[in-house]
Amino acid sequence: MSQKKGRVFSGARPTGRQHLGNYLGAIRNYVALQEDYECIYCIVDVHALTTLETTRDLRQNTYEMALDWLAAGIDPEKSIIFVQSNVPQVMELHTYLSMVTPLGKLTDLPTFKEKARQQPHNVNYGLVGYPVLMTADIVLYKANLVPVGLDQAPHIEFAREVVRSFNYRYNTQVLIEPEMKVTEVPKVLGIDGQQKMSKSLNNHIELAATPEETLQRVMQMVTDPQRVRRTDPGNPDVCNVFTMHKVFSKPEEIAMVNVECRRAGIGCVDCKRLLARNLNEHLAPFRERRAELAQNPETIWEILRQGAARARVIAEQTMQEVREAIGLP
Amino acid sequence: MSQKKGRVFSGARPTGRQHLGNYLGAIRNYVALQEDYECIYCIVDVHALTTLETTRDLRQNTYEMALDWLAAGIDPEKSIIFVQSNVPQVMELHTYLSMVTPLGKLTDLPTFKEKARQQPHNVNYGLVGYPVLMTADIVLYKANLVPVGLDQAPHIEFAREVVRSFNYRYNTQVLIEPEMKVTEVPKVLGIDGQQKMSKSLNNHIELAATPEETLQRVMQMVTDPQRVRRTDPGNPDVCNVFTMHKVFSKPEEIAMVNVECRRAGIGCVDCKRLLARNLNEHLAPFRERRAELAQNPETIWEILRQGAARARVIAEQTMQEVREAIGLP
Ligand code: SF4
Ligand code: SF4
Repeated sequence: MSQKKGRVFSGARPTGRQHLGNYLGAIRNYVALQEDYECIYCIVDVHALTTLETTRDLRQNTYEMALDWLAAGIDPEKSIIFVQSNVPQVMELHTYLSMVTPLGKLTDLPTFKEKARQQPHNVNYGLVGYPVLMTADIVLYKANLVPVGLDQAPHIEFAREVVRSFNYRYNTQVLIEPEMKVTEVPKVLGIDGQQKMSKSLNNHIELAATPEETLQRVMQMVTDPQRVRRTDPGNPDVCNVFTMHKVFSKPEEIAMVNVECRRAGIGCVDCKRLLARNLNEHLAPFRERRAELAQNPETIWEILRQGAARARVIAEQTMQEVREAIGLP
Repeated sequence: MSQKKGRVFSGARPTGRQHLGNYLGAIRNYVALQEDYECIYCIVDVHALTTLETTRDLRQNTYEMALDWLAAGIDPEKSIIFVQSNVPQVMELHTYLSMVTPLGKLTDLPTFKEKARQQPHNVNYGLVGYPVLMTADIVLYKANLVPVGLDQAPHIEFAREVVRSFNYRYNTQVLIEPEMKVTEVPKVLGIDGQQKMSKSLNNHIELAATPEETLQRVMQMVTDPQRVRRTDPGNPDVCNVFTMHKVFSKPEEIAMVNVECRRAGIGCVDCKRLLARNLNEHLAPFRERRAELAQNPETIWEILRQGAARARVIAEQTMQEVREAIGLP
């Protein structure tokens, strides 16, 4: 791994089967980064505990997500893929970092305020510490790059500040300030055409859906709301179907829709059928690999276990340096 | 250890050389408990980080405290004595418990408010979580008894509530609600006769002091403030010297002081000399053992390392149950 350009860390909550939003927003990028970077991809189950009311589906969701990641091309030979709680060192580092993080800084964060509004009955101590745990995730593995959207910039800046506080307090250089690796991702909305695609809003299209289910979901997609009748011209610029065409269809198809929609030369039904076909074509190899992997679930768990074992080696090395830097007995 | 009456946990911050206040308030009791209980005594260096501005003396203070504990009779064959940070599982459990602990409950605690007042420039996230970490200390080792003074009752009640929340949330019985083992301890004040004996107030008498230093410190003790001249009668009931006589002197000496002080039959100087002699006599075997142990500091560290190894076995067992109970992958 040594000739790579740097070490990337990214974590995602175990949300189960992944959808197009996850794919375009993260997974596709995860796969691409493997070529040039040493990548560490983490299923952050401990973070999930800060908001989950029940852990009933935690194991299954972890399994499904790992399966999707692997089927999509995250390669356990190249990258480390593992479950956060399997490397408890992250909670040790979290505790040490919490000693150099002002409480007020955490409670002032907009993301905390928003979560506190969402679950006023469950503003737990762990929820407040979420950004500290996120910082621990990154710096435990001495990752220098974190692939995030621009909206996540404040979190990375927070992590950098915590690292500086730690290094300053203990007069050390042990922890590394991570940097953002900003990625442009297409803004794909849910089938409601309104909100971000998300499982909890049930406006998503699962990667692992069958071609028939995919077609069905695509047919449900909300298009240009101004286009009421087949004979009305449409505006692809405000249509989420067109956004997806731009990702999954051939250049000549995109150009055709762009023209024909505006002069009512194509109807939404045909436009969606085309998208569904292209989507299914694009996802076919993924679905094949997924079905293959799913035949032996134990393999997935074994990959996660081996990933955790590799992650622990890096983590324990960092923690030895951290304990030494703090001056612990 | 199996025929014992239960498992005791107690932790103390690494404050370096111990003084009479530590001895009468904790250590003497720690030693006595070993007969009937399986005892786990922990030097809580992680707690210390919530308030320490510098960790320069952390190692030395840990060493000196362990030395005092061992010289006083804490027996590493009977009990487990170790350093908190050497069993990182406590920080893992702390993180999980933080998910079931309301933030408001922590910030409402009088002890937090007091500490926030003492160090307004350093109200860190770790400081707020202090009682959660304390709970983790106790329940990680499935201790059912915690020897504390009555003033600590709220902390134990807090721990019990966190345990109940955890067990309820995850529908388990894995964690045990600890109980207080209330211990009557003599209220020994510092040599100022005003405040609790404490190193930071420099009103303390070190156990490891030389007989000469001890005499010197005792001679500095503030006595009954009403007794100005040798010929004034005194009131031993308000005199800290007399309080110490009641602990360290023979019954007939206590009776004598109690009578003679009131009729000016004994002067404070003689009264203190008597106390210093008895104190030195009482501490002589301790000091001898301490000097012996101190000849080989590596032995102390080795005892702490072995204690941590034993503690980790219990801790890892608990954590396996905890992870399983939460339903972590
Ligand atoms: S034709 Fe296609 S791009 Fe135009 S509004 Fe309908 S679905 Fe959207
Ligand atoms: S004689 Fe002893 S007990 Fe009485 S006031 Fe003096 S020091 Fe205290």
